[in-house]
Amino acid sequence: MSEQITVSVLGAAGFVGGELIRLLQSHRQVKLLDATSRARAGQAIGRSLPALRHFPEAGRKRFSTIETMREADVVFSCLPGGVLPRVLAQIRPKAKRIINLAGDYRLRDPALLATHYPETAAHGVPEGARYLIPEFWQQDYADCQLINLPGCMAVATFYSLYPLVAAGLVEGEIVAEAKTGSSGSGKESAEHPAERSHNYRPYKLSGHRHEPEIIQALRDHAGSEVALRLSVGSLDGPRGISVSSFMTLRDGVTELDVRKAFFSAYGGTRFVRYLGQAQGPWNVPMLKTVVGSNAVEVASHVDGRRCTVISALDNLIKGAAGQGIQAMNLMHGFSEDEGLTHGGMWP
Amino acid sequence: MSEQITVSVLGAAGFVGGELIRLLQSHRQVKLLDATSRARAGQAIGRSLPALRHFPEAGRKRFSTIETMREADVVFSCLPGGVLPRVLAQIRPKAKRIINLAGDYRLRDPALLATHYPETAAHGVPEGARYLIPEFWQQDYADCQLINLPGCMAVATFYSLYPLVAAGLVEGEIVAEAKTGSSGSGKESAEHPAERSHNYRPYKLSGHRHEPEIIQALRDHAGSEVALRLSVGSLDGPRGISVSSFMTLRDGVTELDVRKAFFSAYGGTRFVRYLGQAQGPWNVPMLKTVVGSNAVEVASHVDGRRCTVISALDNLIKGAAGQGIQAMNLMHGFSEDEGLTHGGMWP
Amino acid sequence: MSEQITVSVLGAAGFVGGELIRLLQSHRQVKLLDATSRARAGQAIGRSLPALRHFPEAGRKRFSTIETMREADVVFSCLPGGVLPRVLAQIRPKAKRIINLAGDYRLRDPALLATHYPETAAHGVPEGARYLIPEFWQQDYADCQLINLPGCMAVATFYSLYPLVAAGLVEGEIVAEAKTGSSGSGKESAEHPAERSHNYRPYKLSGHRHEPEIIQALRDHAGSEVALRLSVGSLDGPRGISVSSFMTLRDGVTELDVRKAFFSAYGGTRFVRYLGQAQGPWNVPMLKTVVGSNAVEVASHVDGRRCTVISALDNLIKGAAGQGIQAMNLMHGFSEDEGLTHGGMWP
Amino acid sequence: MSEQITVSVLGAAGFVGGELIRLLQSHRQVKLLDATSRARAGQAIGRSLPALRHFPEAGRKRFSTIETMREADVVFSCLPGGVLPRVLAQIRPKAKRIINLAGDYRLRDPALLATHYPETAAHGVPEGARYLIPEFWQQDYADCQLINLPGCMAVATFYSLYPLVAAGLVEGEIVAEAKTGSSGSGKESAEHPAERSHNYRPYKLSGHRHEPEIIQALRDHAGSEVALRLSVGSLDGPRGISVSSFMTLRDGVTELDVRKAFFSAYGGTRFVRYLGQAQGPWNVPMLKTVVGSNAVEVASHVDGRRCTVISALDNLIKGAAGQGIQAMNLMHGFSEDEGLTHGGMWP
Repeated sequence: MSEQITVSVLGAAGFVGGELIRLLQSHRQVKLLDATSRARAGQAIGRSLPALRHFPEAGRKRFSTIETMREADVVFSCLPGGVLPRVLAQIRPKAKRIINLAGDYRLRDPALLATHYPETAAHGVPEGARYLIPEFWQQDYADCQLINLPGCMAVATFYSLYPLVAAGLVEGEIVAEAKTGSSGSGKESAEHPAERSHNYRPYKLSGHRHEPEIIQALRDHAGSEVALRLSVGSLDGPRGISVSSFMTLRDGVTELDVRKAFFSAYGGTRFVRYLGQAQGPWNVPMLKTVVGSNAVEVASHVDGRRCTVISALDNLIKGAAGQGIQAMNLMHGFSEDEGLTHGGMWP
Repeated sequence: MSEQITVSVLGAAGFVGGELIRLLQSHRQVKLLDATSRARAGQAIGRSLPALRHFPEAGRKRFSTIETMREADVVFSCLPGGVLPRVLAQIRPKAKRIINLAGDYRLRDPALLATHYPETAAHGVPEGARYLIPEFWQQDYADCQLINLPGCMAVATFYSLYPLVAAGLVEGEIVAEAKTGSSGSGKESAEHPAERSHNYRPYKLSGHRHEPEIIQALRDHAGSEVALRLSVGSLDGPRGISVSSFMTLRDGVTELDVRKAFFSAYGGTRFVRYLGQAQGPWNVPMLKTVVGSNAVEVASHVDGRRCTVISALDNLIKGAAGQGIQAMNLMHGFSEDEGLTHGGMWP
Repeated sequence: MSEQITVSVLGAAGFVGGELIRLLQSHRQVKLLDATSRARAGQAIGRSLPALRHFPEAGRKRFSTIETMREADVVFSCLPGGVLPRVLAQIRPKAKRIINLAGDYRLRDPALLATHYPETAAHGVPEGARYLIPEFWQQDYADCQLINLPGCMAVATFYSLYPLVAAGLVEGEIVAEAKTGSSGSGKESAEHPAERSHNYRPYKLSGHRHEPEIIQALRDHAGSEVALRLSVGSLDGPRGISVSSFMTLRDGVTELDVRKAFFSAYGGTRFVRYLGQAQGPWNVPMLKTVVGSNAVEVASHVDGRRCTVISALDNLIKGAAGQGIQAMNLMHGFSEDEGLTHGGMWP
Repeated sequence: MSEQITVSVLGAAGFVGGELIRLLQSHRQVKLLDATSRARAGQAIGRSLPALRHFPEAGRKRFSTIETMREADVVFSCLPGGVLPRVLAQIRPKAKRIINLAGDYRLRDPALLATHYPETAAHGVPEGARYLIPEFWQQDYADCQLINLPGCMAVATFYSLYPLVAAGLVEGEIVAEAKTGSSGSGKESAEHPAERSHNYRPYKLSGHRHEPEIIQALRDHAGSEVALRLSVGSLDGPRGISVSSFMTLRDGVTELDVRKAFFSAYGGTRFVRYLGQAQGPWNVPMLKTVVGSNAVEVASHVDGRRCTVISALDNLIKGAAGQGIQAMNLMHGFSEDEGLTHGGMWP
């Protein structure tokens, strides 16, 4: 517990950046150096991020800029998509490691990159950039300077699909529908609170860029090419993602096979909690029990050859800032859950 | 506009019964005779149903009982599932027509009936009981004494599927996920508000009794046997159902074919509003624009052979009380939308 | 019922303007002529206002501009505060009557005007501008070309205070706290949905411009100068205002005196519903039963010399668009509730 | 950090009991012995309290009963009001210390006790029972066997009033309005989620039993007899209390005096955070930043002689379970914030 590293956060005035600073307050091996915000440079952090006013030191710190930031062991980039490729050269000399929470370098396929991340395609993907789902950490990531973490809905869906795809238990097309709270759209969203609240509405029924990311991650980790369609809807409420995934089991696969695949995949993980056969009202993954925590809840429901898998996580924590800290912990040999022990609430 | 009929409501202290009385206040051809509630007999209706206090006459009326109720032209049964079969013989002599909003007589298959509606199976389905989706009204329903209306999630899903199934445009299994507000569970729900709010959770992942009802309705009206899996989740908020249906188009079917099928099915309807190609943020069916109204919104989204259809309605109105009034209007030759012109709100 | 007048709406793409058009759809003596929006000129109304897509004719109409609008019998101004004074000269020749729903001409005191409405103070208050609380309608308003309606929180509080102040039953300072939904801040609000939801926060603890307006209205109608402090807070949810007013009764005043004052003031009104002694859980004014309607609910609670009065209304309807239509109905001799018969919902 | 004590929780299946167990999971000096629930004896805790399933050991533990529970260093009583007086004799031999989170022994005045806590009045207040607001901890509490903690709305209001009353800065009557989330009504509430949500409604306008408790606490700690009226309203949402307190400053008191009083009272506290002059939008106490934490936020707003004070806290944490742990920490010489470092969230 003696070692302490220095950490800076780029784009710290946004939702993910603010959440990262908030979570780092309970991390005992980290010293926050710089928090940058072009628009708010010089302002006290606590004025932008009311949750930080309970931490007087962090709350009174002032936003700096990329130009003035100091060298740090870890630099988290929470810059909006498309910005990091433009400033990467400027940041590299000041960062032993960069953990990027935006989508810029998630996809490898050039055609998909051009479609979904045109700014990245224009600047090119730097050498040595790697994509990491924390549960697939291996030692060789430790030498990587630029780590990219998955998208919130991508990773929520991945946790639902990986064990069954890896075990070869499913066949045919998989349908996934993700529902997300309003912080997922970022702080610059133009949506009015009165239009968001008391509503549920689908908003992206095909072509979401998290769809190819899930397919790529399953190819990499489960060694299989899946046919996946992802649809996304908007929930009232600030945080949380719930994903329902519908698939068909191969002939002869039993509910026990399904449960074994999940237990085997997640039994040893710190944050992925498999609940067994999903059963309402409460033995199902849900928003309330994961919001505020770095947990992912997953449950499966088998009915003949039909299998439905539900997963839930907090998009700002396990879907962004929390998995970033988890990745840092792994890279630096800290305890995997350092700074991440908060649990969800009930009720 | 001169004719006026008498109407009574059984089980009037529940959510559907209360909504029915509320809607009937703006119906100009109806006189409310009796509103029964065994538990609240003798109490003023307005004390149970705060929305009725804006209608002094109805609000001050007192709940009666099935025993004391008078003869009426139309008796709406909003009794909880399983009760009507036990009291039907008592009601028949007092009712020219019974419009049943509960599920008792929706399924015809004896095996399914025994599984999903054991009380009905025990008492038997009475002669002449018929099931009506109001958009499929035909004159011969007018002679029917016992009309049964569809379940809220069943009919919401049916509106999404009917045009494409009837036109033979889809193949393979259809996946439907319905999300519903908390009034759907009825007034006797044991769920605590603190457990419901700030949450989203799936609650019934297979075996919901609205699933065979949708299949039966598609068999009847679209002449086709579909493979359907229905999953249901719980939204925060009191009202509204949103259904996402995922299906595969037959080879060669185009987006234009899909739109034509919907326009042709719903172009002439009063309450089913087809929005064309679903496109976020706003050209999608959503809760806010239908809650408070008898409208159903439907939109389709085609991406190659993948077709996603979204529908939304107010479970207490178009999914229950409103469709009951619509059925009554049709049976009595009133304007189809009499009492049902309220629109959804924005924001 | 034969007469039909022409109506235009300025600033129709905002929340109040959209609500006005929505409500006018069920008004049988009005023909909508123009709906202006500088930013959206030429676009279909239904694209900005999803609730209007259930009304095909109005939904397909296109926004025009102040320059191109035609002459109309009634022009509702839903322009943002400060705009009408700049364009009034342009509008006058095209409008037999102007009903202004913004705050520009509510205050008469020049010092208060300069503080709270500097744009108005700069342009001056036009001759013949009058302020109208619809329940105080008198025939001489009929000749007025420029009618100004009260602010949403001002009028909600006024309904709570007027009967007791007019009857001389209270003494000392009155404390009022208003809670409002998010549409109250107008469509240009910069608040993010994720910051608004799952929250309650006070936002204006003194100096709200509705405070002098209430005092002025009580001076005019109750003939008394009150000491009032108004505080305002932000609720999650899109619509609705609830006001709690705390006051002290003069020595010897009884609960019966209080009830008599309210019954006498509101017994003959169409929209102000006095519930008697407020008593939880349900015999209290609340958001759910008024949202969607033009009703105001008011209840009093007397405990010795302490008197608390609660009122509730829908800020976009009774606090804005609905009272505008009510004013128009009175001016034109239509039934006071034409187009305004929708009731609140439960649950 | 070496010492570990044993702790049991009575009434552990309720909201406060569950929250206590959840919070104790991050307390390093406590071992959970028994969690009792008469209704759920023998069931796994994690089935009643979904938030506990992330803590496998605690989640699998089974509810025991008062009869079978073992001796413990600290017994937290989360039994519903009125139960502890009946079973106290049974518990005393098994508990070195009892920390009671219910209201039974909060009031000392026999007349008020008879009115508000008739069960307690019937059984009598045991010798040595003491009432503790944790910020007023003194060493002599350490010897007390039966500690009683304040009510959630009482303590939230107390934090707003104490500094100004103690400093003698206010005169005349104080008006306080508390708004509370739905968990405040306890798990046995009969309210339906559909009736609670999308609503705001006052529910107790006089006579709330937290009113005399606040007056008693101010008498004890501020040495002054205040005239207070407390009104209570129901918010949508599960957690959180916001209190607005309206008072009049004595002649000559300045804003600086007010701020000094608050800084002086709370500068040295761990959990009461004074924000200075309340100023919307964000420099105000609000639900989002305190829910999930043991913090109380307080801010004052002075306008001439009018002073408004706002406070906010999480009713289940700082208003119940969290302050219970804080009290235990103080009694046992643990760090005051052990197990209580979680912060509120934003957004």
